[in-house]
Order: sequence, then C-alpha cells, then structure tokens
Amino acid sequence: MKAGILGYGNLGRGVEAAIARTEDIELTAVYTRRDPSGLSIATKTAAVKSAEGLSDGKEDLDVLIICGGSATDLPGMTPKYAEWYNVVDSFDTHANIPVHFKNVDDAAKKGGRIGLISCGWDPGMFSLNRLYATAILPGGKDYTFWGKGVSQGHSDAIRRINGVKDARQYTIPVEAAVERVRSGENPALTTREKHTRECFVVAEDGADRDRIEEEIKTMPNYFADYDTTVHFITEEEMMRDHSGLPHGGSVIYSGETGSSGNKHVIEYSLKLDSNPEFTGAVLTAYARAVVRLNAEGVTGCKTVFDIAPAYLSPASGDELRAHYL
Amino acid sequence: MKAGILGYGNLGRGVEAAIARTEDIELTAVYTRRDPSGLSIATKTAAVKSAEGLSDGKEDLDVLIICGGSATDLPGMTPKYAEWYNVVDSFDTHANIPVHFKNVDDAAKKGGRIGLISCGWDPGMFSLNRLYATAILPGGKDYTFWGKGVSQGHSDAIRRINGVKDARQYTIPVEAAVERVRSGENPALTTREKHTRECFVVAEDGADRDRIEEEIKTMPNYFADYDTTVHFITEEEMMRDHSGLPHGGSVIYSGETGSSGNKHVIEYSLKLDSNPEFTGAVLTAYARAVVRLNAEGVTGCKTVFDIAPAYLSPASGDELRAHYL
Repeated sequence: MKAGILGYGNLGRGVEAAIARTEDIELTAVYTRRDPSGLSIATKTAAVKSAEGLSDGKEDLDVLIICGGSATDLPGMTPKYAEWYNVVDSFDTHANIPVHFKNVDDAAKKGGRIGLISCGWDPGMFSLNRLYATAILPGGKDYTFWGKGVSQGHSDAIRRINGVKDARQYTIPVEAAVERVRSGENPALTTREKHTRECFVVAEDGADRDRIEEEIKTMPNYFADYDTTVHFITEEEMMRDHSGLPHGGSVIYSGETGSSGNKHVIEYSLKLDSNPEFTGAVLTAYARAVVRLNAEGVTGCKTVFDIAPAYLSPASGDELRAHYL
Repeated sequence: MKAGILGYGNLGRGVEAAIARTEDIELTAVYTRRDPSGLSIATKTAAVKSAEGLSDGKEDLDVLIICGGSATDLPGMTPKYAEWYNVVDSFDTHANIPVHFKNVDDAAKKGGRIGLISCGWDPGMFSLNRLYATAILPGGKDYTFWGKGVSQGHSDAIRRINGVKDARQYTIPVEAAVERVRSGENPALTTREKHTRECFVVAEDGADRDRIEEEIKTMPNYFADYDTTVHFITEEEMMRDHSGLPHGGSVIYSGETGSSGNKHVIEYSLKLDSNPEFTGAVLTAYARAVVRLNAEGVTGCKTVFDIAPAYLSPASGDELRAHYL
C-alpha cells in the first residue's frame, strides 16, 4: 500500500522510520507546507512535495498520515484531507474530540474514506487498555501514570519564559502512588500525589535564575499543582544528557468480581526510548488497518476503539491464530 | 440480552458472577448435562435446565456461553451449538485451534450465527497484547510469564499419583528472568529459567512421601523440565491456605524503531484473585460483542483478534470517546 506523510517534524520522521520497517507499506511522498526544495528526507525512494498538491485529491495514495499539531493544524487538516484520502491523525486535545470527530466523519463519509483520529499511545494504546479493562470489570477504577519522560508541551512552556535559552521537562510518576494503585487499594490521589516535574534549564547569560525558577514553579496548569524541581545546566550538558525524547507510563485498572469481591489488577505499561518513533509506529499499524477496512467498504471517522486488532497486522488470520493466540 | 451458560463448574460460576454485575445481560438459564433437579445456582431468577433441551435450537437465547473442558467437551459442543446459537468458548488446546476454528466456522455460517472461540486471558487478553505489540513493533520478541498462580492441570496431575489425597500446584515466574526481559535485553530463556513449580500435597496415611515427591519431580511434560519443590501439608492446611484460585502473569514485548535502534518495552500484566471469575468476566464482555456483531449481520467463527474493542462495552461511541479515549 502507498502511504504519504504530511508534516516532517519529530512525528513525521517517526512515521517514516516505522514505514521503513514494514514490508507491505511504501512511503511514496512526504508533503510539506514549506518549500519542498529545502527539505531532505531519510527515504531515498520517496518524493518531497508541496502540501498544496494534496488539495485536488489526485495524489496516488492509499493513506495519508497527518503529522501536525492538535492546537492549530489537525482541526483544519484532517477534515480537509479526509474527503479525498484515508487519513490517520494523533489529535489529542481531549475536550475537542467530539467536534473533531464530527468534522472528520462528515468529510470522510462524503468522500467514501476513513479518517482515524486520536491515534498513538495516549490517546491510543492507553485508551484501548482503559476500555478493555472497564468492559471486563465494570465499576472498577482506572489510573494513568505518565513517565518518566519528556513532555514537549511543558518544555516549550519553559522556553517561553524570558531569559530561558533551552529547557527540557521530565514528567515523573510518584512510585509510592503507583505501588498503592498496583496493590488494588483504589486510593484517591491528587494531581500532586501522582506526578512530579523535573526541569533542566539553560539560562541566558546574566538572566535572573531565581526569577526563572519562580516563574516555572508558579505557572498555572503546567507546574503550579505539582512538586517541581529546577536544575540550571549548560548547553553542553543539555546536548549530552537530554537530547533524546524518551517517554512511557502505565494504565492500571483495578476491579472486582463475584459476591465476595475478588480483586483483579490489570496493568499496561510502556517504556519508550523515543516517544515520536513509537507513536509513529502505532500510526503506521493503524494506517494499514484503515486501508484494509476502507477496501471492505467501511467509511467515516473511527478511533482505535472501532478497529478489530487483526487489521493492524499484515499476517493472515491463520498465521495470527497460530502464532499469537 | 438473554444469555445461557452451559456447564456449571468453576468457569460457569465465574460467568454467572460476571453477568450479575452487568446491567444489559440477563442470565436466563444454566444448562447442565447432569440431572437439573440436583443443581442449585446462585441466580434466583434463572432456570436450571437439561443440556438436552438446547439440541432443538429452540431456546430463547441471544448467546450461549459454553463452559466445558478443551480436551473432550468443547471440540464437540461448540460446533454443535454454534449452528443454533451465538456461542462463546474458552478453547485452549493450541495445536487444535485450526481444526476447532474450521468446525465452528462451518456450523456458525450454516446457522447464521457467530462462534467466538479461545476467549479468556490466555488465550484471550494475552493474545491480544502479543498481536498489538507485534503489529506496532514488527520483528520484536514476545515473552509470556504465568503466575504466581494455581495451575489446575498440574494440580490434577499430582492428584492422579498413587497415595495422593489432594494437591495444589503454583506456577511461579522467575523474577530474575522477568527483570531481564523487562530491561529489553531479549534473552534466550529455557523452560527452567522462566518458571518454577511449587506443589502442596496431602498424602494418604502411610503413603511413601519420598516416592510421591520423586514421581512429581520426574513427571514428563508437567514437572521434569522445571525446578520443582514439594511440600507435604495436612488437609486442614490445604483448606486454610490453598482454597483460592489466584492467577495472573504478564506478556512482555520488546522491539525497536528507527535506524539507530531505539528500544521499546510493552508490558501487560494481570494479578487475579480468582482465575475462573476473571475468565468468566472476559467471556461475558465478548458475549455482548458477539450478540451485537451478529445483529449487524456478521457470522462465522471469530477470535478476540476479530472483535473491535468498542463492541465489548455497553457504552455508546460518544461515551467511550469522552471517558476512555
């Protein structure tokens, strides 16, 4: 199947890397909103084209994987392209999912395509595990812990502070809280009890470090509700120790069965060396599913909840039952 | 929806307990191959009927959950009833799944029903996690650890030894092996390196304990390839300390992305107070899915691989996206 990538940031490169490890998906082009002549990509057999060229719906693609931001890119892009192509995105602005779903559903049905939204690991694989667990053990309680890993949104928020040259923020689950949840205790946990935030900051020469630290720790929504630590480091230390984008986390669900209340704990966890490459790998597997489902006549907006697992794998039903059941 | 249970052993009672915690499934009858007048069940609103009555296909059921053994019950029962009813079973004789699948598929298609086979947690939820992981990270490696938990097959094998009155066998994962796998090391592990077996035995008065221990430890397939410990205990100790059926385990998958080989570890684990009640809860969620899919016109033999997760939950698509995505 022929796949295109729209947007060549961290996630776009992650999708490209994932496609390179498949045998059934070919990357035909990366589409960019910048000048294509200025962009060099890793896949030598794929073209670099202007995103403008997608707009007439004439590109020879089985699926377009849209690697844009949830704030301003995806709300416009995904519905726009879902009319012409099967598309996959990683939309993660939770409150706006109903509107995004409706817009993509209308466009995809109009064009006879599938638009799969909110794919990745959270939303995505974590969502699946919350759903499976609650369907099996109704009335239980789910907990999601993130990290240890780099939050790009929080890193960006620190970079916007006056006097900050560069920053990296790690979200860290509180191990004691994880252990309480794992034990099946079902504790009530505040935001502060679940995660801590650790920041590494390169300050500009002469910048007031006390003020920067204070601005970080009191920043509403991002840091004020957490125990936050701030370390000032050099540019060399930032390059050497914090250039990766690791992440991970876990969904832990505990519920009961029977009249005597037998307890069960279900845990799904991820330890990821590269957040964008893993997310790209999830998007790629779902891109395969979307192409196959659309070939069967399915159309409209879908999420990971709507896709039977077998569609994600290139193996046949016989092979799947023999090796994985 | 109206559900029936065929077979009222540990698993049948587990399914009954799970149905009691749903709001959309009603247990209408338990079917037994014994004399129905001799069976008392927990659900006062459900009937106890002879399994004979199922054979004309006239029972008013949306789904029949078949709680029999894989060795002799299910190979006959599931294809037989799949022609008349939507059915769910927990068939777990891995080598015979292709034949069982074909038999159930033929019968279910003939009758316009769905037969879902090999449901539970392994096969079942563990299978799903092996499939999701390999579809996302092709070329990686999966490991399955079982326990700590009671293996009923191994307990039964000990009970068949001359001079044994009762026995309980725990399968225990080797923690050092789990840690090596979790680290992403991808070790080659022998059977002996992955699990140990711990046996609690009540011997008959005057029985030769040394001989019993020797017979256990050298039993082919069951114990000979493992480090096995045997404890002789009293009947009172057996009742007091080993009356539950806890189980669990984990599927750990590690794979890579990108040209530099970034590592990712995916782990799914279960800690279950009651193996049959959790298995029954999984079967119940899939029974709901089967009824809904059949109402949409889907027929034939299915496994957990073929069922989109949303079908397991009684909640609407809007609710699922709002609460779990």
